[in-house]
Amino acid sequence: MDNDTTPARRSKWKNYFSPGGKLRPFRLLKQDAHNLQQRYISDWTIFNQQIVASAVYIFFTNILPGITFASDLFVLTGQSWGTIEVVFSTGLVGVIFAVFSAQPLTILGVTGPFSVLAENVYKLCSNTFNVDFLPVMAWCLIHAGWMHIALAIFNAHDWTMQYVTHFSADIFSLLNSVIYFHKAAMALQRTHGAVSLTAFLYAVIGAVGTCLLAVLLSTANSWGLFHRYVRIGLAEYAAAISIILWIGIPHIGELADLDHERLQVQSTFRPSSPSRSTFFVEFWKLPVEWVFLSAIPGAIITVLFYFDHEISSIICTTERYGVRKPGGYAWDITILGLTTILCGILGIPPANGLLPQAPLHTESLLHYVHDGAAEETDDASPAVSQHTTRTYEQRYSHFIQAAMILVFISPPLQKLLGLTQTSVLAGLFLFMGYQSLTVNPVLNRIFQLLTPAAELPELPSGVTWRGIHGYTITQIVVTGIVFGVTLTVAAPAFPLVIIALVPVRLTVMNRIWSRETLRLVDGWACRPGKPEDELHGAEEVVVVDEEKGRDLS
Amino acid sequence: MDNDTTPARRSKWKNYFSPGGKLRPFRLLKQDAHNLQQRYISDWTIFNQQIVASAVYIFFTNILPGITFASDLFVLTGQSWGTIEVVFSTGLVGVIFAVFSAQPLTILGVTGPFSVLAENVYKLCSNTFNVDFLPVMAWCLIHAGWMHIALAIFNAHDWTMQYVTHFSADIFSLLNSVIYFHKAAMALQRTHGAVSLTAFLYAVIGAVGTCLLAVLLSTANSWGLFHRYVRIGLAEYAAAISIILWIGIPHIGELADLDHERLQVQSTFRPSSPSRSTFFVEFWKLPVEWVFLSAIPGAIITVLFYFDHEISSIICTTERYGVRKPGGYAWDITILGLTTILCGILGIPPANGLLPQAPLHTESLLHYVHDGAAEETDDASPAVSQHTTRTYEQRYSHFIQAAMILVFISPPLQKLLGLTQTSVLAGLFLFMGYQSLTVNPVLNRIFQLLTPAAELPELPSGVTWRGIHGYTITQIVVTGIVFGVTLTVAAPAFPLVIIALVPVRLTVMNRIWSRETLRLVDGWACRPGKPEDELHGAEEVVVVDEEKGRDLS
Repeated sequence: MDNDTTPARRSKWKNYFSPGGKLRPFRLLKQDAHNLQQRYISDWTIFNQQIVASAVYIFFTNILPGITFASDLFVLTGQSWGTIEVVFSTGLVGVIFAVFSAQPLTILGVTGPFSVLAENVYKLCSNTFNVDFLPVMAWCLIHAGWMHIALAIFNAHDWTMQYVTHFSADIFSLLNSVIYFHKAAMALQRTHGAVSLTAFLYAVIGAVGTCLLAVLLSTANSWGLFHRYVRIGLAEYAAAISIILWIGIPHIGELADLDHERLQVQSTFRPSSPSRSTFFVEFWKLPVEWVFLSAIPGAIITVLFYFDHEISSIICTTERYGVRKPGGYAWDITILGLTTILCGILGIPPANGLLPQAPLHTESLLHYVHDGAAEETDDASPAVSQHTTRTYEQRYSHFIQAAMILVFISPPLQKLLGLTQTSVLAGLFLFMGYQSLTVNPVLNRIFQLLTPAAELPELPSGVTWRGIHGYTITQIVVTGIVFGVTLTVAAPAFPLVIIALVPVRLTVMNRIWSRETLRLVDGWACRPGKPEDELHGAEEVVVVDEEKGRDLS
Repeated sequence: MDNDTTPARRSKWKNYFSPGGKLRPFRLLKQDAHNLQQRYISDWTIFNQQIVASAVYIFFTNILPGITFASDLFVLTGQSWGTIEVVFSTGLVGVIFAVFSAQPLTILGVTGPFSVLAENVYKLCSNTFNVDFLPVMAWCLIHAGWMHIALAIFNAHDWTMQYVTHFSADIFSLLNSVIYFHKAAMALQRTHGAVSLTAFLYAVIGAVGTCLLAVLLSTANSWGLFHRYVRIGLAEYAAAISIILWIGIPHIGELADLDHERLQVQSTFRPSSPSRSTFFVEFWKLPVEWVFLSAIPGAIITVLFYFDHEISSIICTTERYGVRKPGGYAWDITILGLTTILCGILGIPPANGLLPQAPLHTESLLHYVHDGAAEETDDASPAVSQHTTRTYEQRYSHFIQAAMILVFISPPLQKLLGLTQTSVLAGLFLFMGYQSLTVNPVLNRIFQLLTPAAELPELPSGVTWRGIHGYTITQIVVTGIVFGVTLTVAAPAFPLVIIALVPVRLTVMNRIWSRETLRLVDGWACRPGKPEDELHGAEEVVVVDEEKGRDLS
């Protein structure tokens, strides 16, 4: 009966906690601290113009969508949270992560799923239980905070995220493109309901114009005209130039008289709610039963944030970006726990890893170095076969974008943000969806799906196009299902679906597809010309910190 | 005093008329008749799907712009000419040229400059002289007809057009792009004046949408997805697909209630003017003094048509298209004279060589053959260095587009045409301007003008970028001046400006630019890898019939 206390069992459990054991406390954190120390100085010694451009791009792609969430949040949390809280949180948490995180590529912001969750908590507080929302939320976030830290201490990353393969990462990326295209459509649909047909037709022009101009400018590097620096500038500031231009256009001629829908902002630096005067919640005044009950939403927030943040970090450091410095998942989850507690006490929504901004950040920092020699090249249009993709891994771009966002809580700059039409925002959504779609390996396989077999390239032995197409279709179907979930009330649970894919990938899929097929498509994104053995090594796990650590010079 | 009758002088004049002499009657015509006989059978023995696609494309690019001229013409000729006359003429003259012309690549239609001229003749007839417009115009065209034939008999081509170099041809092409972009802007501006702001904003969406979809589809060959035939189909029918789709879109939802501006058509097959019952002008009833006075506008029409038609033929057979069969300038001018007389008697506007439809026609017939061997290749994306550009030189595409236009004078099909919104037409104008701009060598040199010297390729000795840039700027300035002329009442005279460039090119320019520079830029469009000597041969003259004749297998 007392099986669990047999010496063998006890020793097995003991093994888990022994040095190097799966649950050995602080094992990953120590390793992360060591890696962070190794990289930290070099994170502040690279600085160039592309980094500034990246910061400007991420500033726009972070703050503008954030403000749209804010206007929903304002309505659905009884004015507890609005623009100012979202901008404040994004800026503050961003600056903290820029300085202290182990992986500064991971951009943070207030996410859609968290907004949905917070709105549900508000509904329960005000309609069902008649208790103050902000103190309850403060405790939810305090609970979530220590749970984060506990996950980090017991090396949660190793027993949850290590087996996230390209299969899941591709799906998550594709999902993001779909979500952003959908957001663009929703923004235009809302505009349609709110304004005259004339203003709506202009909004369509504004949205498509913003997106197409940004797409056009982003190709400037291959134009073969203008000075090289002009081309680089146009390509790197593509979204910013397009946004600023299209914000200006509706002020011209007859367009100025139309009833454009603009972002709703606030013109004073104070909490959105008229009943608050400072950014501080007296959380200790909450009745003790609610302090304990808050642990339930706290646990949900923990699951949501933990997976969201880790997936953002994984996708923004995926192999094809040539990231070489080690990150630190446990370290970052600890910081995330601390900032979550801080946000709770300040009475602002917490920020966490943001998709697709995190991978867009990495993409805007890509450059090319000669193969073999690690020196940088001036070649503006690199031939893939001769160059290796690298990312400028540093903290300036993260820091600058976060600091700029923080500055934008000042009333005059808020007013400036308020000039932005929702049509420009819809255009930015389209552009973000397009950007994250074009670098997704699934897109290439969808094209291959639509091409007759005779025109496709030859495959290695053991691999069939039938198998690859089946794999691609599976990814599309799963993306469709997860997207369906995001449209329902179960939306905040959607990271769990992605996580559920890990065992599916590791067991069921190994039976359906040949090892060779999985090797090919699950390592699909690797650059051409890479030796096969390296591909094998990277087959199951996208991010292997130890290997990257070795790489670091 | 009587110098002109000295034997030496007389013998010199005699030489001009001797066999092979410059003015020897029928010299060119005989040569053309011989060449035509050589090529005629082979013109009807090539037929494939690309030829059908070309016919469909040219059908749209010919009939839709034609109808816009028609609505202006209808107002400005006191209802004498309208849609039905323009469509009838374009179809009838097109069929005649498809069957009988020496150069079936040259597409014909009613041109803008002729419309301006006819409108001026109408104003004189009705306001100043109070005489019937149609009989006067009939006589103008009869005079123009015999003048055409006289020009052909006395080998006018040899002493006027032989020295048209790339310099002038590039300018004319560029001018066409500018004119089409301007037309698109004008069409939208007119729409702006005629409809509500809502319908106008939709028109902008429709115009840009039509153009962008056509541009996108026209790149289908390089997509790397779908079956090869699907890609080819999408690329070849790009404009047609886009036009039909965008004609349909404004019938959806709320857009259906807008006050769209559509092409004005006629729903019966009878002359536009209520005072006419048949397509026949009783020209012999015109008072005899007007018969003689009509020779003056007749001469102006002759100059206009002669140069317009020859320039169209030259540009649509320019070297980069790899046209090999000999044309026949004198022969075609004779046919043009006859069709002009026919149109005069029918009381419809005459058609002549049409820009940019003629070169667009050639471009839609381009294909690639292996170098050396003349056999055709299946390669959809040819490498320039290994393949030679060739044109499907045949009569079917010209015939089919003309026959389709002729069929469209029937009332039910006219009604179909009447569904076309002016916004779609503006989009088509944009697409035509874009198409003819992208293949213009000037565009590449404008890009080089905007690129710093350090990033430009190396030049042969004796050539400087300064010189090339000067040449390019000269072409842009001349294009600007000629475009300025087309906006004034002197518009019909603009072919003369182009002609005036010939002596400028042959004298002044030889002093400003080095021989090497002129060799390079005036033979700029030649394909890479071509031996230098061939370049020399083609330096001064774009079209050398005799040489092409030798090439013909």
